[in-house]
Amino acid sequence: MSNSNPYAPNPSDFISNVPRFEIIDSTLREGEQFANAFFTLENKLKIARALDDFGVDYIELTSPVASDQAREEVEAICKLGLKNSKILTHIRCHMHDAKIAVETGVDGVNVFIGTSNFLRTHSHGKDMSFITKSAIEVIQFVKSKGLEIRFSTEDSFRSDIVDLLNIYTTVDKIGVNRIGIADTVGGANPRQVYDLIRTIKSSVKCEIETHFHNDTGCAIANAYTALEAGAKFIDTCVLGIGERNGIVPLGGFMARMVVSAPEYVKSKYKLHQIRDLENLIADIVQVNIPFNNPITGFCAFTHKAGIHAKAILANPSTYEILNPQDFGLTRYIHFANRLTGWNAIKARVEQLNLDLTDDQIKIVTNQIKQMGDIRPLGIEDVDSIIKDYHAKTTETVDTTDSNRAAKRQRTD
Amino acid sequence: MSNSNPYAPNPSDFISNVPRFEIIDSTLREGEQFANAFFTLENKLKIARALDDFGVDYIELTSPVASDQAREEVEAICKLGLKNSKILTHIRCHMHDAKIAVETGVDGVNVFIGTSNFLRTHSHGKDMSFITKSAIEVIQFVKSKGLEIRFSTEDSFRSDIVDLLNIYTTVDKIGVNRIGIADTVGGANPRQVYDLIRTIKSSVKCEIETHFHNDTGCAIANAYTALEAGAKFIDTCVLGIGERNGIVPLGGFMARMVVSAPEYVKSKYKLHQIRDLENLIADIVQVNIPFNNPITGFCAFTHKAGIHAKAILANPSTYEILNPQDFGLTRYIHFANRLTGWNAIKARVEQLNLDLTDDQIKIVTNQIKQMGDIRPLGIEDVDSIIKDYHAKTTETVDTTDSNRAAKRQRTD
Repeated sequence: MSNSNPYAPNPSDFISNVPRFEIIDSTLREGEQFANAFFTLENKLKIARALDDFGVDYIELTSPVASDQAREEVEAICKLGLKNSKILTHIRCHMHDAKIAVETGVDGVNVFIGTSNFLRTHSHGKDMSFITKSAIEVIQFVKSKGLEIRFSTEDSFRSDIVDLLNIYTTVDKIGVNRIGIADTVGGANPRQVYDLIRTIKSSVKCEIETHFHNDTGCAIANAYTALEAGAKFIDTCVLGIGERNGIVPLGGFMARMVVSAPEYVKSKYKLHQIRDLENLIADIVQVNIPFNNPITGFCAFTHKAGIHAKAILANPSTYEILNPQDFGLTRYIHFANRLTGWNAIKARVEQLNLDLTDDQIKIVTNQIKQMGDIRPLGIEDVDSIIKDYHAKTTETVDTTDSNRAAKRQRTD
Repeated sequence: MSNSNPYAPNPSDFISNVPRFEIIDSTLREGEQFANAFFTLENKLKIARALDDFGVDYIELTSPVASDQAREEVEAICKLGLKNSKILTHIRCHMHDAKIAVETGVDGVNVFIGTSNFLRTHSHGKDMSFITKSAIEVIQFVKSKGLEIRFSTEDSFRSDIVDLLNIYTTVDKIGVNRIGIADTVGGANPRQVYDLIRTIKSSVKCEIETHFHNDTGCAIANAYTALEAGAKFIDTCVLGIGERNGIVPLGGFMARMVVSAPEYVKSKYKLHQIRDLENLIADIVQVNIPFNNPITGFCAFTHKAGIHAKAILANPSTYEILNPQDFGLTRYIHFANRLTGWNAIKARVEQLNLDLTDDQIKIVTNQIKQMGDIRPLGIEDVDSIIKDYHAKTTETVDTTDSNRAAKRQRTD
């Protein structure tokens, strides 16, 4: 969209990280909190390798403190020697957790604590000065071990803006690599995201990571808008799996970003692997790919209405912002229905290698639409209507063919 | 979110239609363009009644010009005498189509034409002066019949802004009820939506309707942002079904709006019916409800991580922006997994009506987490671990119970 956007360039475009974002995939942390997720070590290793091969910049893992097995898994994934992805683990803002985390072999640590009134009252019960003190201690410790560190506030969009700015500027000064802004309950909307991220961006030197839940269906758009406001790192999960209905889905986010930063996205991430990656996770957590999933939903590149099919046949960009070939997929013109048009049927006649004039195709299209009024049509139904009609015309056309042959002989 | 939004009020809030939007449901038009859709008359009547009962403001139907059956269906739905929903039909900007549409009994007509270079070149081949002339003729005709009329440009976000403003101000002057802004290819993003809608809103007196496709996962957020910019009417489909991967889903949009305008949404729409409405459509078009669907996805109100479960048990608002009761649903604390915490297990112990101290519950929680490291756990597994542990404690506690009974006798 960037090329055709009549509103660009614009002064605010210069703070945008849309053409240089990075992905922190959390399928092996947030995704493990999905109701159906139970990842064996073998599957965790398989998922980590697939994410690395796709090209995500970071892979975030469940805290090694969660259980004995969790710790062994973090260590095993760190030993894989991945090519593209750095390894993070996600821990509470406690020295106890930090001490265990830095021994596992990870490249960095993502610490979090709730700063909203809701969480301060009902979850950990700590006040802001305690939170700040813990944050400084943990950050200095992790940095002393030579690891990357992110400090994140849970439920940032229901936290007091003064509290947020205080703690973020504090951790920024002591050298945190990234701060994290999280919409833990999935209630934020894009303009609110833009305002908050842009305000924080103007107050800190470090980079900004974001984590958007999808309860109100805005996760992808919020992530995109956060990049426009100057955030750089987006948390994703394959198929968006996570607590409740999950977070920003990796595939859907790629659909958004390939439209907005096509060269960057296509050169950096192996988009052809999205389908396999989604199928891998869907099998492991036993869900179906949603019918309306961006890119890989079964009908994402299916065109049905006659008016759409006509234009798509002339130029696919008319009704497609995504090119299915970028994802190793193909488009499909759905011609077997009562909304079909004669351009779609003409394309099918040509695929069947039959010879009909435009007027004849319009007649057979009407026959198909009439049948489509009565019952659902399969491709075979349409093909047999076309072939029957073609057979009838060729009976009478035989003479025409002879005429043509005769004419050709005369002019040759 | 409006109540807790620290950025409100703000001068731009006064152009917002967030607390007074209306729904134009297009399941029976856009939805009919979904790859799997074949609606019999009987099913169309059932869907129209269900949408009316839910409370959508308008129902949009496939053009009566599409086929003979389509015309009969429009007439049949108009005769239903719906209580809440006005009936529209969606036609090309042609006098031929308009003359047929106004005879069907509809309350209004939604006309559309493509104004982007892509569509002008590859679809209808008409220039802007021809488009303007057709628009005026059709609008005046429909108004002369006493019906509502909307004029819409397809692919508005790839159209020239000067062309758009010219045609919208023209049709506004001749008295169109609504203009429609359509992201036909699903490539728009929220801030672009805000800019375009707000610019157009400041140039016309009529209302603005929007139509957002979901190819890049931003449809709900774009619709919400359009309302903030002054649009009032949002096109939806049940489950978002439509061309390719569809448009704004009615249920997901309700999740967004109930957070932003709770009183308005709860008093106007029967949110308890979303599940039945979605099941009705899913059955007819033979798809599954997506696992991650807002509100009705199987895990939309399931909480799994120990830290979430603890806080949710103390106050559901900590990790929920939506209240499941608003939709006739219930929340579920997922305690049968290795990420569980002792607060979640304590809640289960209480549900089982067993008597364990906090220290005992912490011990049994560790046993559960160890088992969860080894294999997926069912609720029965956890219950049997708890009951086994409880049985062992009661063997030794028998004496305690006797002591208690003795003590009680003494104090009674």
